[in-house]
Amino acid sequence: MVSKSKIKVRYAETDQMGVVHHSNYAVWYELARTDYIETLGITYKAMEEVGLLVPIINLQSKYIKPAFYDNTLIIETRIKKLLKVKIEFEYKIYREGEEQPINTATTVHAFVNKALKPINLKKESPTIYTKLEQSLEY
Amino acid sequence: MVSKSKIKVRYAETDQMGVVHHSNYAVWYELARTDYIETLGITYKAMEEVGLLVPIINLQSKYIKPAFYDNTLIIETRIKKLLKVKIEFEYKIYREGEEQPINTATTVHAFVNKALKPINLKKESPTIYTKLEQSLEY
Amino acid sequence: MVSKSKIKVRYAETDQMGVVHHSNYAVWYELARTDYIETLGITYKAMEEVGLLVPIINLQSKYIKPAFYDNTLIIETRIKKLLKVKIEFEYKIYREGEEQPINTATTVHAFVNKALKPINLKKESPTIYTKLEQSLEY
Amino acid sequence: MVSKSKIKVRYAETDQMGVVHHSNYAVWYELARTDYIETLGITYKAMEEVGLLVPIINLQSKYIKPAFYDNTLIIETRIKKLLKVKIEFEYKIYREGEEQPINTATTVHAFVNKALKPINLKKESPTIYTKLEQSLEY
Repeated sequence: MVSKSKIKVRYAETDQMGVVHHSNYAVWYELARTDYIETLGITYKAMEEVGLLVPIINLQSKYIKPAFYDNTLIIETRIKKLLKVKIEFEYKIYREGEEQPINTATTVHAFVNKALKPINLKKESPTIYTKLEQSLEY
Repeated sequence: MVSKSKIKVRYAETDQMGVVHHSNYAVWYELARTDYIETLGITYKAMEEVGLLVPIINLQSKYIKPAFYDNTLIIETRIKKLLKVKIEFEYKIYREGEEQPINTATTVHAFVNKALKPINLKKESPTIYTKLEQSLEY
Repeated sequence: MVSKSKIKVRYAETDQMGVVHHSNYAVWYELARTDYIETLGITYKAMEEVGLLVPIINLQSKYIKPAFYDNTLIIETRIKKLLKVKIEFEYKIYREGEEQPINTATTVHAFVNKALKPINLKKESPTIYTKLEQSLEY
Repeated sequence: MVSKSKIKVRYAETDQMGVVHHSNYAVWYELARTDYIETLGITYKAMEEVGLLVPIINLQSKYIKPAFYDNTLIIETRIKKLLKVKIEFEYKIYREGEEQPINTATTVHAFVNKALKPINLKKESPTIYTKLEQSLEY
């Protein structure tokens, strides 16, 4: 499964180089993976409410071309890897209508409880784990 | 009492107009009033730990001149008004070495508990209230 | 004329109080007034390209209720006042489906050129001025 | 050479998980590498003024432990690799007084001109290139 998120670049996201400041991409990956799991009927908010957090432990980002103010961007998101204790998402960001991505990235997240201690998602939240697993297959 | 905070403008705080994006000033006021109360021996962190929060309820900001990347800025902070249920801070931001402020602002904050319900600070935390009150006088 | 913008609160916009950090509202007002002028067939990007900038000179914001992660918010924007050298916008932010705003604000902006010097918009860009003026009336 | 930068975590940098939102680290790396080159007598501002930009093309970040509001953090920065057309910085972030980093990262930057076209730094700005090169050696 690949989810698609659409965003419009905000003025506040630009810097004096005239392009989007690179720190904003991490914010976009986050809303993109939230869209991904919402497609599965899971909300990040509901996960937090039952005490499941998924903090980032690794981020890799490749900036290929700049994004500009007012650009409409499409973020394609998929799960690259799912383990019992962590998950890896992959992102490709395109300017709307273009075929080459301007940015590609991966993020790895641990499954932890409210005390920020690692948990085994398959054991603690089998329903969520199964939904994530199934989305990998189609 | 007037506290002084010094900051250096970060690249990420600029926008494509080549100046600091106006949304960052609210972040600076916040660290400036934190410095103010730390001068009194109170930390915002300790306040939160005892369940006292001071969310903003009003913000007024006057942008006089732009701030630029790498500028060193001085923020002067004082309490303008202290009531049992809320507090008003006043800020003046200067480029280091200049006499005219580039920005002036006020913020009003409510005293609330963790459930975000209003509290009477004088009654709930008389020590903190007294320290704030005394700082108004000298 | 009143324009409506819809946004979804991003995780990165929250703070450890569990609500949206107040500095983000200024970012939202900005995208809301951009939507307003786009409704008139003007883009902020096109304005910048002809050398017209509209930096903020005054911001007033009243925080009535908090906004939370994942909330869908509606921002209603209108022009409150239009002068030859500056413009005032007014904003009301609602949680989707609610009748009472959680935040109200005004921003005042100067019309300046690329050197950040004030200009008379009616004289320099009569087409844009007229469109803004007409939107005030219906 | 290793430069050290000190920052204090701002409230606005936290999120509702109660830790620093991960997107802020990229802002910190940026101010850390700015400090590094300032130690060499180069300012990023001066580089921009002569038309030399160093946009990021790759970011890798490993989040080991969370950072909290009000933490004082030390960022150690060094050049990992210098080529004629790009440069790689390495960062280690520590909570003050601790021996294990809470975050490690690398960023790769291209040398480009104002039109965002790649340039050969050794040829275009030999003085800057030499200073960077020498800092690698001691």
